[in-house]
Amino acid sequence: MRDSDDAYGRLILEYFEGGGAIEVVERDDGFVNASSLGPAAYLAPFRRWPKAERAAMRLARGRVLDVGCGAGRVALELQERGYEVVGIDVSPLALEVARRRGAKDVRELPVTRVGPSLGRFDTFVMFGVNFGLMGSGRRAPWLLKRFRPLANEGARILAESVNPYTTENPDHLAYHERNRQRGRMAGQLRIRIRHGRYRTPWFDYLLVSPEEMAELANGTGWELTRVIDKDEHVYVGVLERVG
Amino acid sequence: MRDSDDAYGRLILEYFEGGGAIEVVERDDGFVNASSLGPAAYLAPFRRWPKAERAAMRLARGRVLDVGCGAGRVALELQERGYEVVGIDVSPLALEVARRRGAKDVRELPVTRVGPSLGRFDTFVMFGVNFGLMGSGRRAPWLLKRFRPLANEGARILAESVNPYTTENPDHLAYHERNRQRGRMAGQLRIRIRHGRYRTPWFDYLLVSPEEMAELANGTGWELTRVIDKDEHVYVGVLERVG
Repeated sequence: MRDSDDAYGRLILEYFEGGGAIEVVERDDGFVNASSLGPAAYLAPFRRWPKAERAAMRLARGRVLDVGCGAGRVALELQERGYEVVGIDVSPLALEVARRRGAKDVRELPVTRVGPSLGRFDTFVMFGVNFGLMGSGRRAPWLLKRFRPLANEGARILAESVNPYTTENPDHLAYHERNRQRGRMAGQLRIRIRHGRYRTPWFDYLLVSPEEMAELANGTGWELTRVIDKDEHVYVGVLERVG
Repeated sequence: MRDSDDAYGRLILEYFEGGGAIEVVERDDGFVNASSLGPAAYLAPFRRWPKAERAAMRLARGRVLDVGCGAGRVALELQERGYEVVGIDVSPLALEVARRRGAKDVRELPVTRVGPSLGRFDTFVMFGVNFGLMGSGRRAPWLLKRFRPLANEGARILAESVNPYTTENPDHLAYHERNRQRGRMAGQLRIRIRHGRYRTPWFDYLLVSPEEMAELANGTGWELTRVIDKDEHVYVGVLERVG
């Protein structure tokens, strides 16, 4: 990743060093969202996490892969609780912040490059709505299958998403419809993050309902066995290794 | 102006109705700035205005034209002090907010359409860095000449700007250089405001040093006689009617 691509890491670094940074997300239909909540959430202490994540943490066990670890929010908490954690992310600056905060093993690696060299895991954590990194209805099953050989017996994926169908915002509903017409899942957002002169490349970020998550897992060696929904914005799907 | 163009007014309306809105400004070199200060500043009470503006208010007199009146911050203050004020702006939603806040005479009119039908004035106020609406080194003298026949004897323009040469930000310095190479003034920013699905058209916003302001006024029937600079971000140039 070129330095000028790392808008996400730059945002986190600025927030980490001085606070006050605002996250600007641009969607490919021209919709722009600016929020000061993003950066704060990326570094939030456990007590400020969404309830569904706090509940799902009780299901973590053994060796853990933190997919899209960012500034190390989840990896650090797991580390403190005595778990062995490997974090992966594509943002060099976010990883720098994670290391400065004490993360022991975080690596620059895209989710699409997850493979046997990472070793085997008992838990895969995708908090921070990181089931979104599955990208599309096509890539999600491919990635789930790719996770499968890394999974120890009884392994779980704690997969966080936002149910896109709960919105009433007409702009978002129009975007869903536009996606459907192009043969994409309604919640497949094509977005980029912008910050000063920095901008990430455009990337696909997938929001799914629990039903869609179950469907995507079908035949991949994973099964959605439980949904942790605490009536907040996000929910955590628990995908268990089959067989 | 189409509704979807009025990102500026939408921002102001949302801030006025609920607070918390963030202003996203995109420059044509791809630089993006997000700030929560903008919307708050657009509706700030007198005691929170920049010192230079507060000092310059003492120079207002007679009938006043508030150029780029937005949500009526300056027009309302002048009105309360007993002045006759006409405000002009291109944003229908900002004008709606100004009217809801009590502005008596605000009109949808671009600065380039200022003409004799507005009547004559003793003071032209361009606070909120609204000398920027002069747009370019070419348009500024043209507009100043256009203001001239509306000016009563002894009339003044209170012209606020930011000296672009005080920055040390390498991105801004590179932008200045890019402008010079294209034969534009260094501080001529080509920008647009984005907010949700709303975006203003691209427009030119001119930042000048006091020396440049004096130069631009040369031969237009106006003369820079005084600069009010309180060591904050902005300064107010006082342009007096010549002859």
